[in-house]
Amino acid sequence: MNTVIKESQATQSSLMKHKSKESFTSTAGNLTDIQQSFRDAMSKLAAAVNIITTEGPAGRAGFTASAVCSVTDEPPTLLVCLNRSASVYKFFKENMVLCVNTLGLEHQDLSGVFGGKKALEERFEQGSWSTLSTGSPVLEDASISFDCKIKLISSVGTHDILICEVLDIKHKPDCESLIYFNRGYHQLSKCTN
Amino acid sequence: MNTVIKESQATQSSLMKHKSKESFTSTAGNLTDIQQSFRDAMSKLAAAVNIITTEGPAGRAGFTASAVCSVTDEPPTLLVCLNRSASVYKFFKENMVLCVNTLGLEHQDLSGVFGGKKALEERFEQGSWSTLSTGSPVLEDASISFDCKIKLISSVGTHDILICEVLDIKHKPDCESLIYFNRGYHQLSKCTN
Repeated sequence: MNTVIKESQATQSSLMKHKSKESFTSTAGNLTDIQQSFRDAMSKLAAAVNIITTEGPAGRAGFTASAVCSVTDEPPTLLVCLNRSASVYKFFKENMVLCVNTLGLEHQDLSGVFGGKKALEERFEQGSWSTLSTGSPVLEDASISFDCKIKLISSVGTHDILICEVLDIKHKPDCESLIYFNRGYHQLSKCTN
Repeated sequence: MNTVIKESQATQSSLMKHKSKESFTSTAGNLTDIQQSFRDAMSKLAAAVNIITTEGPAGRAGFTASAVCSVTDEPPTLLVCLNRSASVYKFFKENMVLCVNTLGLEHQDLSGVFGGKKALEERFEQGSWSTLSTGSPVLEDASISFDCKIKLISSVGTHDILICEVLDIKHKPDCESLIYFNRGYHQLSKCTN
């Protein structure tokens, strides 16, 4: 087995803005001590990087997120946390479907596009997209794509927890993952001999 | 900057049992195609490894989990997913406090202890433990410890989502993380020059 992780040389995107001191103080004033400590600590909780997409009556949208978590497999369910003030929020709330596209090593630039300020429609100009069951955009070469129906929304503070039943899955046989950790990208690659 | 990840040589613990084909079929019979596909796909969603602990009227307990996710920092909130049929469940439900201890490179054996079949009290014989605000066990050399009050519980299928307000945080200044990916441990170490 070979396992390699490389630190990325590229700039850190706006992924996980809520964990960045700079972005917060510019929009919401001073942090309390516990908020600042929470952001600093959360930056050390390593996580996979995903592009979450939707398509439906409200239109097409997508954003980069690490706040994705498995819930249960009876029925297959995952959750995604989303800030209600995000520009993409209304699309997910109205369409009630989404696709979690878990990124591989080659998707760091795409992560930046969907985590940045680019207009929503322009984001899809990069990457190759198809669909599965719900019509939400599926990134053709994602490590995994979980195509989901949003079953329940739970509001907590500034964010909604979108609880999603997985209707369809597409995943690549190889083993690699783009990781966000310590406010930067890392590449986890595990290749069998 | 040096970044190194090493694949662990140790056995894979029962961490994330719900993602293991073997453990499921032995307890719950045949999987549907979508359930099996969900487990296989979720094994490729890399995540940090944590020991979640509690102490209170019900007593002390702890388990290993990767299903931990940041929710919001207004107020600082995270969530933990827990199977209602787990032996530790009643302790968390009654105590309504917990500590998320995010593991470093040296904690792989401890992850196995808290993810295995060992009696709940015996699990704490390994490791060095203290407390912060809630009285839940804090692993002294964890990368991060989030000491929390459980504010809300949302049931989804077999699992509960424990939504927790973070009251106190302790974290080490160095940058390393134990990662669970592709049904095995990996070590992410990012050391500044």
